[in-house]
This record gives sequence, C-alpha cells and structure tokens, in this order.
Amino acid sequence: MSVAQAFDDWMLTNQGAMEIALAQFLPSAAVVPARLHEAMRYTALEGGKRVRPALVFAAGELFDADPDLLTRAASAVEMIHVYSLVHDDMPCMDDDALRRGKPTVHVKYDEATALLVGDALQAQAFSVLSESTADPVRVLAMVRMLAQAAGSLGMCGGQAIDLASVGTALTVTELEQMHRLKTGALLRASVFLGALCGKALNANEEAALDAYARAVGLAFQVVDDILDATADSATLGKTAGKDAADNKPTYVSLLGLDTSRILAKKLLNDALTAIAPFGDKANRLAELAHLIVHRTA
Amino acid sequence: MSVAQAFDDWMLTNQGAMEIALAQFLPSAAVVPARLHEAMRYTALEGGKRVRPALVFAAGELFDADPDLLTRAASAVEMIHVYSLVHDDMPCMDDDALRRGKPTVHVKYDEATALLVGDALQAQAFSVLSESTADPVRVLAMVRMLAQAAGSLGMCGGQAIDLASVGTALTVTELEQMHRLKTGALLRASVFLGALCGKALNANEEAALDAYARAVGLAFQVVDDILDATADSATLGKTAGKDAADNKPTYVSLLGLDTSRILAKKLLNDALTAIAPFGDKANRLAELAHLIVHRTA
Repeated sequence: MSVAQAFDDWMLTNQGAMEIALAQFLPSAAVVPARLHEAMRYTALEGGKRVRPALVFAAGELFDADPDLLTRAASAVEMIHVYSLVHDDMPCMDDDALRRGKPTVHVKYDEATALLVGDALQAQAFSVLSESTADPVRVLAMVRMLAQAAGSLGMCGGQAIDLASVGTALTVTELEQMHRLKTGALLRASVFLGALCGKALNANEEAALDAYARAVGLAFQVVDDILDATADSATLGKTAGKDAADNKPTYVSLLGLDTSRILAKKLLNDALTAIAPFGDKANRLAELAHLIVHRTA
Repeated sequence: MSVAQAFDDWMLTNQGAMEIALAQFLPSAAVVPARLHEAMRYTALEGGKRVRPALVFAAGELFDADPDLLTRAASAVEMIHVYSLVHDDMPCMDDDALRRGKPTVHVKYDEATALLVGDALQAQAFSVLSESTADPVRVLAMVRMLAQAAGSLGMCGGQAIDLASVGTALTVTELEQMHRLKTGALLRASVFLGALCGKALNANEEAALDAYARAVGLAFQVVDDILDATADSATLGKTAGKDAADNKPTYVSLLGLDTSRILAKKLLNDALTAIAPFGDKANRLAELAHLIVHRTA
C-alpha cells in the first residue's frame, strides 16, 4: 500500500469514527425537542472533511493518547466548528443558502432553529468533553483551551473582526490577525487538544506544535481564499466567489493569486519544519498539512 | 436591623460583588475586537436582579463554599443567562427592543453583533469556570452541570419547545415541562453549582435541593407570566403584555390570574418545606424563594 493510500485510509477511518461518535454524542431525533435534535443532527452528521478532528487524532497519535478522550476531544471541536458554520450562514451574518452541498439550517428549518442549533451545539461540545472519565486535571485543561479558542479572544473575536472588515482596506498583517482568531484559534486548539489527550507538553513540544498549528491555520485560510476565487460552487459545496461579491478583503484580493499560492507553499514548509524534530511519529500531522494546502474543496 | 433589611443588604452586597466579578471576567472594551467586547459589557454589566447568582451564593453559604469558586460559578451562570436573553431578543426569536430598561443588543448594535455577543458569552462562561484553581474533580463536575443545563436537554431545548408552542394549545403539564427546561434547568443548576462549591452532596441533600430548585424554578415562571399580564413595561424593564400579543400559552392564559397566584404560593410553600431540614443555614435560600414569588418586576 502506498503512503498516499495509507493516509487516505486513515482519513476515511477517522471520518467513520467521527460519524459514529457524533451520532452517539448528539441526542436522538426521537428525544424532545425532536425538531431541534433533528436539526442538530442534520447539520453535524454526514458532512465535511473533518479536518479539525483529523488534527486532533494526528496530534493524539504523536503522544499515544487515550482513545476515548481523543474521540471526545475531536467531537467537541467539531461541534464548535459546526455551530460556528450554522451561525455564520444566518441572514444577519454571511446569509448563505448552501453548506457542504446541503441547504443551510436556517433555509432547511428556520432562523430561530438555526440560532438554537448553534447555541445547543456549543453547550454540547462542553458536555461531551467534561463527561470524560479521564484524569480531571487533564480534562479541565482541555475545557479551558476549547473555551478560550471558541470565545471573543478566539473564533468569535475573529468573526467580529471579519464583519467589521467588509469593504475596508486591511493590510496583510491585519488580515493575518483576523484569520489567526477566526479559523486559526480552533485549528490550533485541535492540535493541542489531541496532544493533551496523551500527555502534558514540555516547552519544546509546545513551541513545535504551536509553530505547526499557526502555519497550518494560516495556510488553511490562504487556500480557502484561493479556492473561493477559483473553484465553482458544486466543487466547494458552498457558494463560490462570495468574498469578492461581499467585498471582503482576502489573500487573493491583497496579494493576487500567484503570490497567495507561493505563500501557501511557504506556510506548508514552515509547518513541516516545525514538526521535523518529532520524526516519523508526526507523519500524520505532516500529511494533514499537505492535505490542507493541496485540497481542491 | 430587621430580617428584611439584612436580606436586602445581602442582595445588594452580592449584586455589587457580581458587578465587580463580571467586569473583571469580561475582556476590557479596549481589547480587540473592541466593539464586540463593548457590546458584551453593555449587556452583561449594570443590569438585572442577578437572581441566579443570588441562588449560587445562597446555596454556597449553606455548604461553606470556597469564595473564589463561588464567584466564578455565579459569573458563569449569569453569562449563560445573559447570552440567552441576547439571543432570545433577536428578531428571529422574540424580536424585543427593550431589556432591563435598555435597548437590546441587536437594536443598540446590530444583529450580527448580538449573535456573536451571545456566542462569545457562552464560551466565556466555560472559560471563567474552568480557570478556577479549586479541586479539578469538583470544577469539572460543575462544568458538566452547567453545560447540561444550558444545552438541548436544558435551556436551549426549552426555548425550542417555547417557539414551537406559539399559537398551540398546551396542557398545564406540557407548559410545565417547557418551563422546567427553559428557565428551570439554569435555576436548578445555579442552586447545585453553589452547593458544589462547598462539597459533594449526599443523596438527602441532593433530593432536598432538587425539590427546592424545581419549585422555585416553576414559581419563577408562573410569576413571570402573572407580571407579563399585569405590570407595565416601565416597571418590568422589558415589553409587557408580549405573551398575549404573541399568542403564547402561559399560566395566566391556561389557569387564569387567581389560580396562577394560588399556584405561585403553593410552589413557594413547597420550596420552603424542601429546605426546612437544613434549618437556619438555609435562610437565604428561603428568602430568595419569597423574593422570586413576591417580586413586582
């Protein structure tokens, strides 16, 4: 079996594990309030590349993580990510009708349901994590990390900056700062949550993972901007070309396509360099960095 | 000093402590993203009776709780409560322009900011709690309790049932079930979080607090419905008469005013009976039950 095939299999295995875990950690659609639970499952199940869970699993492999805690961490991160998509798609934010190739929650159900689905998914993320029976010191540190990454100094803060930036002229540094919060914080948390499932990190390990996570987080966004400008909606599973239509500053609008592609490659190289000291045990993290930069959707 | 005066002073002291704690636990309005942080502080500070924090403090007194953990628990519960109000007031939910006598967040700022304020406040609640340096086993149990009370089997679930109930004919049992989730779950969590700041509960203590919390939680809602039907907007600090205008089932619409008042008194009696075994140490909880039933706003 080739290296690429082994990695593809690993991704599929993890996606399958996530599907089972999320289906189990979300209340059944038969439980009252049935419509809310149905909508939570509609948006969280059967969708997405599960990039954040993959980062959790890859970082966990590096440090021989506890499998149950790892699955909880991956599910919690994905629930936070999915809730942010549901709220982000609402009419008062990006007003998007299509996500992962399906109608968005407020289109399929209604706006109030979309609001509550997001709110309930955030709470559920903290439930799933805090219900772990692993070492409470470790689990509590993970709750702290997830809450900080999700809040106003992390993901929500980045979205607020994003909203305020529409139609304004950001510098590349300002754009980078926005994305470090908006998508970077949760991607970074994914890496650290996975690692914390295995052990407390020493300073060198923390610095290496931080450098990797920062590079990968930024690369993710640069590639997102490139894809939004170059791919079609069917391939993306969401509306393409929205950034330009919404007059949003992006790497492509600031740097142009060619320079954005060069930047993505440089960031990939930074990520790989950062984890080189871990040797072969970090192969999954390296392959994920490649996937994030070379993806086509 | 009379008993009533001592209780009033206790409430004022706690409200002052909450103001200081929330001001400290919320990022400064000078921190980027400044507008989001300003809006979070706008809605969370200088407002409300702080009933939930008072329940946390009262239950904490009963079990000689750790003061720092108690303040964190009270702040976390209040942040969850405030976020739920911000989202509840949005146009796609109750569409209310006035809250605690001030313009609601989506009116003062905009809808997208209101959405993010609520999302970030929820995350911040879990940050504040999980950053405690108290016994991790205890703190983690509290995170679990708060997350469950806030989620789809608690507060968010109750709001979903509430939305679905507009214009329908609920029975009193169904109405009670809705409120047990919508407001009851977080009020109950307030009592238990306060108690857990002091000690792990034995089965008798847990049953007593549960009976108290359930009675108080339901009484709170019955009185809310009475006030919505009888008080004016200036007194309430929010739009009065909305339930009838929105065609929402309430205790008043199902039972009438007189029977609703009798029910509130019965629930007060239930609450007091439940905590009688604790003796004088539960006086604050008893006084809070009185306050909740006899409030005029």
